Amino acid sequence: MKQVVTFGEIMLRLSPPLNYRLTQTATFEATYGGGEANVAASLTQLGMPAAHVTCFPANELGQAATQHFQRYGVNMAHTVFRGERLGLYFLEVGASMRPSKVVYDRFDSAFANLWPEDFNWEEILKDASWFHWTGITPAISASAAQACKDAIAAARRLGIPVSGDVNYRRNLWQYGQKAQDVMPGLVEGCDVIVASENDSEDLFGIIPQEGAAHSFTSMAEQLMARFPNVKQVITTRRETLSASHNQLKGILYDGQSFVESPSYDIVPIVDRIGGGDAFIAGFIYGSLSFNDQQQALTFGVASSALKHTIHGDFNLATKAEVDEVVKGNTSGRLLR
Amino acid sequence: MKQVVTFGEIMLRLSPPLNYRLTQTATFEATYGGGEANVAASLTQLGMPAAHVTCFPANELGQAATQHFQRYGVNMAHTVFRGERLGLYFLEVGASMRPSKVVYDRFDSAFANLWPEDFNWEEILKDASWFHWTGITPAISASAAQACKDAIAAARRLGIPVSGDVNYRRNLWQYGQKAQDVMPGLVEGCDVIVASENDSEDLFGIIPQEGAAHSFTSMAEQLMARFPNVKQVITTRRETLSASHNQLKGILYDGQSFVESPSYDIVPIVDRIGGGDAFIAGFIYGSLSFNDQQQALTFGVASSALKHTIHGDFNLATKAEVDEVVKGNTSGRLLR
Amino acid sequence: MKQVVTFGEIMLRLSPPLNYRLTQTATFEATYGGGEANVAASLTQLGMPAAHVTCFPANELGQAATQHFQRYGVNMAHTVFRGERLGLYFLEVGASMRPSKVVYDRFDSAFANLWPEDFNWEEILKDASWFHWTGITPAISASAAQACKDAIAAARRLGIPVSGDVNYRRNLWQYGQKAQDVMPGLVEGCDVIVASENDSEDLFGIIPQEGAAHSFTSMAEQLMARFPNVKQVITTRRETLSASHNQLKGILYDGQSFVESPSYDIVPIVDRIGGGDAFIAGFIYGSLSFNDQQQALTFGVASSALKHTIHGDFNLATKAEVDEVVKGNTSGRLLR
Amino acid sequence: MKQVVTFGEIMLRLSPPLNYRLTQTATFEATYGGGEANVAASLTQLGMPAAHVTCFPANELGQAATQHFQRYGVNMAHTVFRGERLGLYFLEVGASMRPSKVVYDRFDSAFANLWPEDFNWEEILKDASWFHWTGITPAISASAAQACKDAIAAARRLGIPVSGDVNYRRNLWQYGQKAQDVMPGLVEGCDVIVASENDSEDLFGIIPQEGAAHSFTSMAEQLMARFPNVKQVITTRRETLSASHNQLKGILYDGQSFVESPSYDIVPIVDRIGGGDAFIAGFIYGSLSFNDQQQALTFGVASSALKHTIHGDFNLATKAEVDEVVKGNTSGRLLR
Amino acid sequence: MKQVVTFGEIMLRLSPPLNYRLTQTATFEATYGGGEANVAASLTQLGMPAAHVTCFPANELGQAATQHFQRYGVNMAHTVFRGERLGLYFLEVGASMRPSKVVYDRFDSAFANLWPEDFNWEEILKDASWFHWTGITPAISASAAQACKDAIAAARRLGIPVSGDVNYRRNLWQYGQKAQDVMPGLVEGCDVIVASENDSEDLFGIIPQEGAAHSFTSMAEQLMARFPNVKQVITTRRETLSASHNQLKGILYDGQSFVESPSYDIVPIVDRIGGGDAFIAGFIYGSLSFNDQQQALTFGVASSALKHTIHGDFNLATKAEVDEVVKGNTSGRLLR
Amino acid sequence: MKQVVTFGEIMLRLSPPLNYRLTQTATFEATYGGGEANVAASLTQLGMPAAHVTCFPANELGQAATQHFQRYGVNMAHTVFRGERLGLYFLEVGASMRPSKVVYDRFDSAFANLWPEDFNWEEILKDASWFHWTGITPAISASAAQACKDAIAAARRLGIPVSGDVNYRRNLWQYGQKAQDVMPGLVEGCDVIVASENDSEDLFGIIPQEGAAHSFTSMAEQLMARFPNVKQVITTRRETLSASHNQLKGILYDGQSFVESPSYDIVPIVDRIGGGDAFIAGFIYGSLSFNDQQQALTFGVASSALKHTIHGDFNLATKAEVDEVVKGNTSGRLLR
Repeated sequence: MKQVVTFGEIMLRLSPPLNYRLTQTATFEATYGGGEANVAASLTQLGMPAAHVTCFPANELGQAATQHFQRYGVNMAHTVFRGERLGLYFLEVGASMRPSKVVYDRFDSAFANLWPEDFNWEEILKDASWFHWTGITPAISASAAQACKDAIAAARRLGIPVSGDVNYRRNLWQYGQKAQDVMPGLVEGCDVIVASENDSEDLFGIIPQEGAAHSFTSMAEQLMARFPNVKQVITTRRETLSASHNQLKGILYDGQSFVESPSYDIVPIVDRIGGGDAFIAGFIYGSLSFNDQQQALTFGVASSALKHTIHGDFNLATKAEVDEVVKGNTSGRLLR
Repeated sequence: MKQVVTFGEIMLRLSPPLNYRLTQTATFEATYGGGEANVAASLTQLGMPAAHVTCFPANELGQAATQHFQRYGVNMAHTVFRGERLGLYFLEVGASMRPSKVVYDRFDSAFANLWPEDFNWEEILKDASWFHWTGITPAISASAAQACKDAIAAARRLGIPVSGDVNYRRNLWQYGQKAQDVMPGLVEGCDVIVASENDSEDLFGIIPQEGAAHSFTSMAEQLMARFPNVKQVITTRRETLSASHNQLKGILYDGQSFVESPSYDIVPIVDRIGGGDAFIAGFIYGSLSFNDQQQALTFGVASSALKHTIHGDFNLATKAEVDEVVKGNTSGRLLR
Repeated sequence: MKQVVTFGEIMLRLSPPLNYRLTQTATFEATYGGGEANVAASLTQLGMPAAHVTCFPANELGQAATQHFQRYGVNMAHTVFRGERLGLYFLEVGASMRPSKVVYDRFDSAFANLWPEDFNWEEILKDASWFHWTGITPAISASAAQACKDAIAAARRLGIPVSGDVNYRRNLWQYGQKAQDVMPGLVEGCDVIVASENDSEDLFGIIPQEGAAHSFTSMAEQLMARFPNVKQVITTRRETLSASHNQLKGILYDGQSFVESPSYDIVPIVDRIGGGDAFIAGFIYGSLSFNDQQQALTFGVASSALKHTIHGDFNLATKAEVDEVVKGNTSGRLLR
Repeated sequence: MKQVVTFGEIMLRLSPPLNYRLTQTATFEATYGGGEANVAASLTQLGMPAAHVTCFPANELGQAATQHFQRYGVNMAHTVFRGERLGLYFLEVGASMRPSKVVYDRFDSAFANLWPEDFNWEEILKDASWFHWTGITPAISASAAQACKDAIAAARRLGIPVSGDVNYRRNLWQYGQKAQDVMPGLVEGCDVIVASENDSEDLFGIIPQEGAAHSFTSMAEQLMARFPNVKQVITTRRETLSASHNQLKGILYDGQSFVESPSYDIVPIVDRIGGGDAFIAGFIYGSLSFNDQQQALTFGVASSALKHTIHGDFNLATKAEVDEVVKGNTSGRLLR
Repeated sequence: MKQVVTFGEIMLRLSPPLNYRLTQTATFEATYGGGEANVAASLTQLGMPAAHVTCFPANELGQAATQHFQRYGVNMAHTVFRGERLGLYFLEVGASMRPSKVVYDRFDSAFANLWPEDFNWEEILKDASWFHWTGITPAISASAAQACKDAIAAARRLGIPVSGDVNYRRNLWQYGQKAQDVMPGLVEGCDVIVASENDSEDLFGIIPQEGAAHSFTSMAEQLMARFPNVKQVITTRRETLSASHNQLKGILYDGQSFVESPSYDIVPIVDRIGGGDAFIAGFIYGSLSFNDQQQALTFGVASSALKHTIHGDFNLATKAEVDEVVKGNTSGRLLR
Repeated sequence: MKQVVTFGEIMLRLSPPLNYRLTQTATFEATYGGGEANVAASLTQLGMPAAHVTCFPANELGQAATQHFQRYGVNMAHTVFRGERLGLYFLEVGASMRPSKVVYDRFDSAFANLWPEDFNWEEILKDASWFHWTGITPAISASAAQACKDAIAAARRLGIPVSGDVNYRRNLWQYGQKAQDVMPGLVEGCDVIVASENDSEDLFGIIPQEGAAHSFTSMAEQLMARFPNVKQVITTRRETLSASHNQLKGILYDGQSFVESPSYDIVPIVDRIGGGDAFIAGFIYGSLSFNDQQQALTFGVASSALKHTIHGDFNLATKAEVDEVVKGNTSGRLLR
């Protein structure tokens, strides 16, 4: 059976219970996540097979992280066990005007030190229906960037659609290369790109044309001109009313038409982390299942909205549950 | 001292903490509840004596359920211990557009297998000021339906007011009889009926007259015509804005006048389960305490609103607390 | 290094988890707090040294309370260990229209039985930049009132600014003296007074002039006329929409100008206790750091708003976090 | 149905989880208990009706304590609600060579301030099969001592057997009277006395005769000579190997024969509090059920041994479970 | 890669935390287990691939149970989703002389109502290295017994070794057939039988020869005579000193030689459930890995001993950890 | 007031609750500790002032670690905030024959990257009564080794006694220098050395003389010959019966006499981590308080024994509690 394949780092996430601050807590709730693996896990919950490829230290924590994704049905058979430590991050959950806050401790992880030659991409991708990566991977280390590049190249050779979430995080790029030099080589192999105007400006120097009707469309057009393989550019628009209340919609440009999803009101937010990944998972699911990019986009945003009501890094919502939201059933009426 | 008597199944309720999903959790919070017993327990908290009659398996779980209601002062002296298992249900608590969800595991419970002859209703009801049942009981099994019928008959003989919440749940009726055949025989012995227009249509084929000023009034009039003992029909109107935000009011028709309570805005909802039972408990309390059905109805809805802010199946609010809400004091200002 | 000094009782606070009621819970979350110590602890989090002076029983609970404040950097070196019991209070956290509720158990505590001569105020205050007290202390016992009076007198002798939060709680005054007789002697030594119109009427019989443009200004003017040392009167205005949703602003009168802060919308409220203390801490911080009472007032209210999103009695927000709110950044956008 | 009646204070017990120290913990597990109420609750679990008489403050804590005992079937209908505070105690659970430790905070409780005239003992005891008190009650206050004396007198008038656990705690007697003056007047109305040689020496100056074969027998003989109503003297012998490992047996003298139970090895100890109360409950149960004081004594000690394996202040063991231990079945083999 | 295949029911296990009693608790710890699935999960932890075959209801609980075993790497791809409810059991954990206690609620589960034709055993077993079943499965229902028989037959056809743990539980056999009639037909297809003398007498009427040197050997000889396919009979000997302290060894007879493992002292016991299953998993592992039945037996008992120190139904010990115990390294010295 | 000064890394410790395995848990209990800081914190609990010197990242985790030690009264004023990450370790708590296990994640921590010139040792040590370090510090990095050397040198210049726990952990030494080259330069500045025969052989090639009456004495003699400043060599002897049961004693040689403490039986062990640090803290306390090295040694071992009954990395026992154990009072009898 064909499966979506994702590649990237998985971290241990440690968060104080409720809204306790990092400096207050004597317990942490533990879960495991990463931008790309979250896509895979969200897909398996929707009913679509998915495999995630990563590198873990050969210790109890690497094993626990593997098992966490196995539990939700993600194929972890391609995990490489090499290196010393599992990256981790601390999450403090905000409320009202107090933002949630992430403290990373991921440098020098097993994943950052991966050996690209450990991954036989032709083999890994032989059953793949789609390959997804994010801009976090090439930011981590030269070898991670190389493995990412290898994977994209293999996917192209095998004719597998590729999506990339550029997700530019300035402070992650610390190994000596610049995002601006590395990213173009990866983006050029992609069919779908997730990017905001800011990302595009920072990474590719693309500035929406002055006077353009829509800054996103203008940006996307330039991006697609620069990277001719790219057929769709998507992103979310998030209205952050408070740490507890957001509004979310999705937009897409395919070179010809601009498509917009409904906007969803999310209050209260249970767990904001992975909202973007759930959007991408929903969009991939929709792209592979429906013949309609509007439908795929809305399915992605509805998935993301639901994710905000679910604890943990990924979206434990079923296809049927997302469908309800897509149909406009957002009343949350008790189901017996 | 006179007491309200209720009859029905009590189940173990198991819910993951916070908003965790059933598939995520490694712990369950346990409480005990049932539509009728919740009425009894809500009444004792208001200061009105109440007894609940049920059937439990003679094991630790039946004992724990008994003790749970004893704790809150419900008279459990008439509990019959017979049968094999305690019914249970799993509750997943939603948020925002994600609904809460109940998974029942109640078939073939000790209560479903009760022996009607175990209950000496004349004896049980000898001190009763009111008898309350719901449409869930006759849905469970023929013997439960029989016991319910016996109880209503005894109450009528003893001149005790009877209320019935018709609460039609299609998928519960699986033992071979149809709700449409069974329910009329029970409703005809009632003084007060809790029913919505949908319930009435489904159960009794009553359809509000076209062009009627108020569908509820029209339905209630027909219901009272069919069942002449019924003197009041009541129900709540719930606006479900999200799983975390509802608005609630109550309406009543007594054959002559239509009465409406204020509407209460409930946000955030702490625990929605038992909201309807708290309404009925408040209405019974009010009916037995005040000489004013408007007051009784408002007391019922205010009780229900408060219930939504309280964990567990029933309403741990005192008379004084409900009175504050009735007076319009809904600001939630800190009490020292 | 100069430090703010506060004086008052610290209690053990016991609250059921989440929104559970006191009668439901089998566990209590424990923390320690008191109106004045909360000011000290909020100040140390902002980066300003602070010491708190109190009296504890010489047992494990007095030790635990000491350690709780030491943890957050409050100088507890002047703690007197004498007496029998630590005062405590039980906090039930409400939601929506159900108020939070405090049940005190603080009578006859070690602090109430303190010996004024145990406190060498000249020594304690020798490095002080500010001294703060509240009207709770003189309400507790004659000896507490005496120690408070001694402290204020010493502060004046040493030329240290003094603030007093009059915080009138009628039911606390039970040891035989009347607030109306005791409080004037304390207020007259203060530079800054926190008081509402109600407090002023109850304690000093001050009634805002009829037809005054602003009742607060009118009250403050009279207060300052009566107590000529008082240079600023401040208070908060709280709009209590529900137990989960408040709006908050601060106002100040300095004898000449009336100053008002922006209003902050706080929803959901995580923990309302200590909101007023955080306001005062922020105002003291601002008064000692900025040359601008408008800025100090806004800093105080922003501190208080943030406090409502933080568990426990005091404000674990940093200077940088308060500054963000002051700048109007209340969107709660995730920080990575 | 006849019931055992007990009288005494009930406190809120607060203990850190596991073996955490009081100074470490951020949560407390809460339960309610008291030496006499523990006897009542242990009896209802064995299947024998019991009522407890006490005085609580009319607040949420008094209500919670009432409900805690109602849950386990203790008749709390005679509770008087008057006064200000519920006594409480903090329990730190030791292990190995580190002892468990109790910090009391019970002075000036509602119970200490009870009004003896609130208790109509003739009425309370009209269905009683037995009355039990302990030496803690007269230690608390003069009015508590008076109420205890009234109860014993009423029991004698009604011909009800009376047991008293002298339980001398020197540091409790702080209200101005001496145990040595008060206790004789109470003991003289008893049929059964629980006392060790130390208690007897401290309270009554009774010193086992030099050269006596058995110090306990010698003490008991003198005690019975002094208080001719006393027909049995009992106590436990505890070998404290560590905080986690005790050995326990019981002994009895009835003026003629000396009776001894088997010794039970208890390791690990789950919760040592209430071990003595469970012994007395078992002995009362046995005395009222069996015609054999040896059997009653062994039943008491087996009850106490089981109590040590159960969390909380009282013995949630059934008659059948105690019987197994009495039969020598202490292997703890899994029951399916 | 070849895998061990097991077949049987999986239940939700609910247990109060620590040593709390079922009647005390307000929370349950949830895990999933079943005698045969526990073997599979213990094997995957040892590093041997394993698949479990079962039938779950198509609801969230069936999904959660599936995911629980997926997490630990058990192949759940053959799960059939059909039926209404997941069987469950409640576990109360004893201590010292108080036994642990299991309350089952498993009747009429989805597994009990399975359809034998849903399972294509030739397909399921095509990669199998071993098939394992227990006597619990045929006890549950006629259709479960049939499926078990089908599986054994298929295994024999495919030449796969079969082990059966007869595990006779009288009170489970309630569907109308007798164990004595059903079990022989299943045992005759086995290579390895786990049985005690009691099991053999109850099920097959086999009584150890009087005067036999060893009752187990005598029983095993007769069993092997009756069922000629059986080549090894194994069991454990458990010395139950208390609920917290057991001693365990294993014995084996192969028709010629009697083999005995060392005895392991287990104190304290963390979780006794699944101890027998861990023994069988270890023995299967050993049988497939070593050329030495003594070694296999000892590996099984060491596995079982370790299981007693691990929470949950199965043995989360690695091969390396079991090896340490086999080598006699039972000192529990801290590993850094 | 004079204080003991310690220097070393502090890590965040994360452990699953109870005996759960790292691969099972969804929550971690968090505390902070380090071999040297544990000594400081144990000393403040005994009533002796202590300061700890370390380097933390300037983030929430560094702040939380600082606050953890401030809470228990350790002077953290010399903390340097520089670098990126807080070292951490995962602790799985074993039972019976299953060992506890530590997984370190401490490489490249802020402490490992400290700048020696950040520490002004003359200033830091100006009030010191003692300086303590361990062999873990020089193992971490060259700069940590350098800072340690600087501190020892400063202590010697100031005439402050120095103790070093050589604590050789082979797998920590990964930065390019060998323990055998670095350690002698540090040990030579010490007055007291904690070392076992194994440590001495591994680090200094010292082999107890063949035929020596006591291997420890022989080793210590050689060590003192090599490092003439060393006046006392101490260590503990631990009998590891199981992960739950150890026996512990201490031994000392001062060049002339061999001293031995009583042996303490520790069962059950609550938390073994920091047992050695508590021993050293007790010995330092004793050395500075008593005029008797036997007394100091026994005080150290009694401290260590108590530590095993206390959760967390350090010994929250008071002087009075240790004294009880020293007196032989190890019965753990309940204290009221």
